[in-house]
Amino acid sequence: MAAEIVNPRSDSAPGPAGADGISGTDEPFDPAFALHRGGKMAVRSTVPIRDKDDLSLAYTPGVAKVCSAIADNPELVHDYTWKSQVVAVVTDGTAVLGLGDIGPEASLPVMEGKAILFKQFGGVDAVPIALATTDADEIVDTVVRLAPSFGGVNLEDISAPRCFEIERKLQERLDIPVFHDDQHGTAVVTLAALRNAAKLSGRTLGDLRGVISGAGAAGVAIAKFLLEAGIGDVAVADRKGIVSKDRDDLTDVKRELAELTNRAGLTGSLEVALAGADVFIGVSGGTVPEPAVASMAPGAFVFAMANPNPEVHPETAHKYASVVATGRSDYPNQINNVLAFPGIFAGALQVRASRITEGMKIAAANALADVVGDELSADYVIPSPFDERVAPAVTAAVAAAARAEGVARR
Amino acid sequence: MAAEIVNPRSDSAPGPAGADGISGTDEPFDPAFALHRGGKMAVRSTVPIRDKDDLSLAYTPGVAKVCSAIADNPELVHDYTWKSQVVAVVTDGTAVLGLGDIGPEASLPVMEGKAILFKQFGGVDAVPIALATTDADEIVDTVVRLAPSFGGVNLEDISAPRCFEIERKLQERLDIPVFHDDQHGTAVVTLAALRNAAKLSGRTLGDLRGVISGAGAAGVAIAKFLLEAGIGDVAVADRKGIVSKDRDDLTDVKRELAELTNRAGLTGSLEVALAGADVFIGVSGGTVPEPAVASMAPGAFVFAMANPNPEVHPETAHKYASVVATGRSDYPNQINNVLAFPGIFAGALQVRASRITEGMKIAAANALADVVGDELSADYVIPSPFDERVAPAVTAAVAAAARAEGVARR
Repeated sequence: MAAEIVNPRSDSAPGPAGADGISGTDEPFDPAFALHRGGKMAVRSTVPIRDKDDLSLAYTPGVAKVCSAIADNPELVHDYTWKSQVVAVVTDGTAVLGLGDIGPEASLPVMEGKAILFKQFGGVDAVPIALATTDADEIVDTVVRLAPSFGGVNLEDISAPRCFEIERKLQERLDIPVFHDDQHGTAVVTLAALRNAAKLSGRTLGDLRGVISGAGAAGVAIAKFLLEAGIGDVAVADRKGIVSKDRDDLTDVKRELAELTNRAGLTGSLEVALAGADVFIGVSGGTVPEPAVASMAPGAFVFAMANPNPEVHPETAHKYASVVATGRSDYPNQINNVLAFPGIFAGALQVRASRITEGMKIAAANALADVVGDELSADYVIPSPFDERVAPAVTAAVAAAARAEGVARR
Repeated sequence: MAAEIVNPRSDSAPGPAGADGISGTDEPFDPAFALHRGGKMAVRSTVPIRDKDDLSLAYTPGVAKVCSAIADNPELVHDYTWKSQVVAVVTDGTAVLGLGDIGPEASLPVMEGKAILFKQFGGVDAVPIALATTDADEIVDTVVRLAPSFGGVNLEDISAPRCFEIERKLQERLDIPVFHDDQHGTAVVTLAALRNAAKLSGRTLGDLRGVISGAGAAGVAIAKFLLEAGIGDVAVADRKGIVSKDRDDLTDVKRELAELTNRAGLTGSLEVALAGADVFIGVSGGTVPEPAVASMAPGAFVFAMANPNPEVHPETAHKYASVVATGRSDYPNQINNVLAFPGIFAGALQVRASRITEGMKIAAANALADVVGDELSADYVIPSPFDERVAPAVTAAVAAAARAEGVARR
């Protein structure tokens, strides 16, 4: 019990004050703290409760008829509750931003942030669920038990390789979409940017050989997704070098990756892979030496997505590459997951999809790329998150793909 | 997978139509269905996300500083997330209203209703969590894992006797309030009404002998709470008669009840207990024959709280009783939990109480009784849920009691 814990700041009024960190009685100088005070979200009623007549409709006794109807026909839960419009944003706090394993409480500001982005950009309600367990089976069991209340599950900031197992088992056990955004959201936005970069240079995906630095959640998902979309070849490098069949230190996930990727059979360091490569995709947080960037093929694309420090500084990348993208909002071509996940879930929920298929993700990437349209340029291969055409385009494309693939329930 | 399930009504527009139930393509005539379409709640952002500067404060990179601060000092989660203002409304769908075990999906309209009452009457955010398990240990483990995201847990519509074990285990394992409203909310409002009824008749609680019909969650909790508050004696009757030490068919919970209650040592039927009793409290859903009501002491109080059919019809009760209360909104003196739970949680969350103590519940009942004040009459022993003085009075009393009892963290 923590009853004896006294929080020295608990009675302080909101508002910025001293710059000496958060140990004092006032807010630190950083405006992020003032913005986060009290959290970033709330619940609201969408029906009136002005008098006892309202109360007896929205609650007992009126609600009993609605409950009985759902008991008789379970599909009606989608019509008469918020289930079909609410997503659980589930984490265990083990891979939060670049901070790593900071635990469930410390991850909550990110999950709340994700929830309000769902609402702002996709009109999707979302609830942050930060779990007090890091055991994969316990996470799976917990989410399965929560599932009756939610229309979808967005897994977030769960470390590899557990994230792969957790997502797979949940998809097997649930008939609602389960989507690990760090994997698939990143992959969708990356493919959209790559399609437009290829278009700009008059090439197809099949003409390209890519190199991914980082074999975590994002790296693995991007590699598989680009192959699915038809890239010529892609190699993935982790800290020990290129993932290849001759290595004997690979996890199950990386062994699968070795089978799927690196058709050229490269071995050795990231630098070996980059020589003559057409695309660099950084999701590692490391740095790439300038000579390795210089060794890439003419007209290469550099997507250095580590935050806040890209693997290749954009100014360096521009010396050698024809298209440069980062994860940062202060440079052109920001690869930002918020371009994808709100519309992907909005589309899936709209048609009550039982899952999110490869085809739905490809459709999302294509729709995202198409928003750029005729304005395509080296500094504009991917739209801004604040482009209001984005979410409707992704939503419509994903809903249509779900219908086409037979996973829609309406 | 349920991808092949087709919902025949899924494309129908909202609005009332045929009165032939819900099997057609349109809404049934009952206005409750129209009100419930699409659910009754939504999430909203409390911070602006108008441009990339807002985005970089509310989400990455700005949010990282807030996460790091919480990782360093876990208590800060209360300051910088919505944790301290959000309650999980948790059920397994086994004892929903008078409908019984209808499952998690069918219980959701009630949980959403509860959530919006939390917001409307207590300013407390709440999230419906209907679990796909009825195993007590699995429910406990699941809620413990969810707890980092919530400031409190309202257990709802979980059947006896599992509800007692689940609540006790959760209270042992968590340092946030865990409150089974069907037990304690009902007990608090009952005590408030009983205090005022006693006051009206110039008696104290110690002068009264009560009889409770029903030994489920509400009956057990009311019996214990009235004893805690000082009632002279109370007997509880289940379907087999008065709970007494000589019975050999009692569950653990009822054996404890037999020790605590029925100091008079009564045995036999409910009617035996009612002869000469001062108070009847019905939380059973059964009916009480008129002669048994007539056998009560002069000036008795009849609280027939079953919904929608009180154990004693109010008109019958008025022939014999000086004060009559029900659970219905269309008669005076409605014993309605919404009078208690929003303020109880609001008060507990305000001071970050680690639990809800007996003293806090007594304080809530007293505050609720006091709202009636000088207007006290036989038809007004308990305020209306729409009396705007109620929630602030309960909130303040509960917060003060938490501080006095040493369970407040601020």
